[in-house]
Amino acid sequence: WASSLGEHASRSMPRIIHQGRVWGSQGVRLTTPFEGLNTKWSSSLPSSLVKRDEPSPGLAVLVMDDPKSRNSLSLNMLGELRMHLEDIQADESVRCVVLAANGPVFCSGHNLKELMSMDSEEGLRTIFNECSDVMQAIVNLRTPVIASVQGLATAAGCQIVASCDLAVAAKRGSAFSTPGVDIGLFCSTPSVALVRQIPHKAAMHMLLTGETIPAEKALSFGLVSEVVPDGDLQSHTLALGKEIASKSAAAIDIGKGIVREHKDLNLGDAYTCASAAMVRNMSQR
Amino acid sequence: WASSLGEHASRSMPRIIHQGRVWGSQGVRLTTPFEGLNTKWSSSLPSSLVKRDEPSPGLAVLVMDDPKSRNSLSLNMLGELRMHLEDIQADESVRCVVLAANGPVFCSGHNLKELMSMDSEEGLRTIFNECSDVMQAIVNLRTPVIASVQGLATAAGCQIVASCDLAVAAKRGSAFSTPGVDIGLFCSTPSVALVRQIPHKAAMHMLLTGETIPAEKALSFGLVSEVVPDGDLQSHTLALGKEIASKSAAAIDIGKGIVREHKDLNLGDAYTCASAAMVRNMSQR
Amino acid sequence: WASSLGEHASRSMPRIIHQGRVWGSQGVRLTTPFEGLNTKWSSSLPSSLVKRDEPSPGLAVLVMDDPKSRNSLSLNMLGELRMHLEDIQADESVRCVVLAANGPVFCSGHNLKELMSMDSEEGLRTIFNECSDVMQAIVNLRTPVIASVQGLATAAGCQIVASCDLAVAAKRGSAFSTPGVDIGLFCSTPSVALVRQIPHKAAMHMLLTGETIPAEKALSFGLVSEVVPDGDLQSHTLALGKEIASKSAAAIDIGKGIVREHKDLNLGDAYTCASAAMVRNMSQR
Repeated sequence: WASSLGEHASRSMPRIIHQGRVWGSQGVRLTTPFEGLNTKWSSSLPSSLVKRDEPSPGLAVLVMDDPKSRNSLSLNMLGELRMHLEDIQADESVRCVVLAANGPVFCSGHNLKELMSMDSEEGLRTIFNECSDVMQAIVNLRTPVIASVQGLATAAGCQIVASCDLAVAAKRGSAFSTPGVDIGLFCSTPSVALVRQIPHKAAMHMLLTGETIPAEKALSFGLVSEVVPDGDLQSHTLALGKEIASKSAAAIDIGKGIVREHKDLNLGDAYTCASAAMVRNMSQR
Repeated sequence: WASSLGEHASRSMPRIIHQGRVWGSQGVRLTTPFEGLNTKWSSSLPSSLVKRDEPSPGLAVLVMDDPKSRNSLSLNMLGELRMHLEDIQADESVRCVVLAANGPVFCSGHNLKELMSMDSEEGLRTIFNECSDVMQAIVNLRTPVIASVQGLATAAGCQIVASCDLAVAAKRGSAFSTPGVDIGLFCSTPSVALVRQIPHKAAMHMLLTGETIPAEKALSFGLVSEVVPDGDLQSHTLALGKEIASKSAAAIDIGKGIVREHKDLNLGDAYTCASAAMVRNMSQR
Repeated sequence: WASSLGEHASRSMPRIIHQGRVWGSQGVRLTTPFEGLNTKWSSSLPSSLVKRDEPSPGLAVLVMDDPKSRNSLSLNMLGELRMHLEDIQADESVRCVVLAANGPVFCSGHNLKELMSMDSEEGLRTIFNECSDVMQAIVNLRTPVIASVQGLATAAGCQIVASCDLAVAAKRGSAFSTPGVDIGLFCSTPSVALVRQIPHKAAMHMLLTGETIPAEKALSFGLVSEVVPDGDLQSHTLALGKEIASKSAAAIDIGKGIVREHKDLNLGDAYTCASAAMVRNMSQR
């Protein structure tokens, strides 16, 4: 592992300059440009867009590694993410997943170049369906998924964070937005994840204005579950992943599944479902 | 527009003195009375209860202008609000709505005098149905609605704020409550909007105690989306409205509608619905 | 009533030492052990596990009084809670309930000794169903229920707090966790209450890590509705209960019921339901 964050980061990476409004600043533009924390995770498969590592038993780390495209969700990137998630789903040795990214942008959402080049509705449909499938693969994965967020997480990149079970964000070096509205493309699919995670008006503010929100604000309304100093992001997320991976696999798997299952039920049905899970869990301990 | 807030405000307006408990003050009564920020929006139709203006292209401003009744929601006020909302729904040139009020009270809820004078259940039913229709007209409106809140927003007045997509509140000069319980009339219809916007216990606290909550507290649990210094309320809300009105009409309209549509669906259906909207949005850009 | 908190508390009570991670402390272990506020509520029925008192007209106080077992939810404790809730449901003179506990632990959840001694799935099923029934009895009770929380509220103890309409917590002397995952038993039934009360990632963090969260943090995401200085817990909760009990019984009963009824409906049906309740409430004033 990199002994210090950014150690191996490409110095030639263009700085991500964010000049838009920032939530809560009441319309005052940033006087200093926002620069995303630049992370570099170790890699085992240098030629792929998504790298998978297993730093400790039961903990899988998936790293989006296409900093040049700002880790945009091209069909190739989506395909690799889906493949890894399917592998993990089938691999009972994995008990927890960390989803991270290399470079100063966590994920910039759809690959706009690819999107704009589609000349048929069929092509567009393929992209949006593939992306929605990956998001649901995260939500429906057998094991918990922890986002480790550095830099900007925008549009479908913000949707990834919202779709994970937990999210650790770099205090100064991460920020979140759904700015599709600024290019005439409302973040409709990201809104599915957002309105299920944060208060309605907070979601509408992000979606209607495209404003960028800093990590602490994101924490205040539940878009992320923890904010840590930039220098601690990698170590903290790994420690959290190891901690969860070290717990009872039966308990964790039953738990994530049961929350997903009972969440949309009425209270009586939810308790019937969860009580049965407790009995099942007891017999599997 | 008024060059400074309160400039044209009636000096003879009775001060709104609030002597009840305020959230978080642990039962200590206010030592200084709460006085709502007194706003005066420009008006084009001096004889009506609700005035409509269009300060910039695509931005409609609706101002409740019956300070003497504390902008209570009489059948006349509700009728005018509904008429304006229907006009806006049919007017494709409007892309964003600001809902504001004149005087030191944003809206005091139902007109109690009118309510108490009803001598039949039929009459009561008419009032509550009309009010619920107006709230749903806000939620279902094609374009986003931003509440601009000064003074007290109580009962159905608080419900209006909760029903809007966004809400900007004056930092010291606004406050929120659902005090129906104190006159033996639980705020049942306001509770529909409240429990869909803020955490359950926060909603129950407001509904069961009738306590008044200050703007910052309302922001902390998502009842409003922004809090600004009293002197900036009007200019900030207008700037926000102009910003949203300047964005792609197709994106904004698709966006508001799609969030409303997918919000109550299960995750799979929500993504099917939102993915289709993305394709539609792309072809309308 | 005890004139000062802890006055009658057993001095021989073992200190509750909490050495686990605390939310937000980024993995740093507590340097000083957490010691729950030790409360002692007055009692009228010294031989039972749950005591009921009526300190003022219309206000029922239920006190879990089994400090030696850390107020664990044994079948006996659950049975007494259910009996009292059924009595209150049938007793129209009761208008508000405070649910409190004696000793330095509010409630430690299921009685693990009893749970582990069950040698059949049937026995386990009985325990979890009984517990779920008590939680639903709180939610479905005619009158509001206020939790008064001192010490740790863990697992099903935390679920009780989440299930109440309101919760007042001691600022330094209370804390919350769902640590089942640490003994291989995911808090599936507590998760039913948690995910319906607090942001999704906050719930998942508690459920997946088992971390203990302090009162102020619990307040920030809505698990409790108020935090008060330790010394004020008892008096503040009683004052709140008296205040609610003093309001219109018709309004309070209609109110709690109507929120439960409309909460899972779509917006149109919810307004139909709530508007009818307003008419009914008016005719019962």
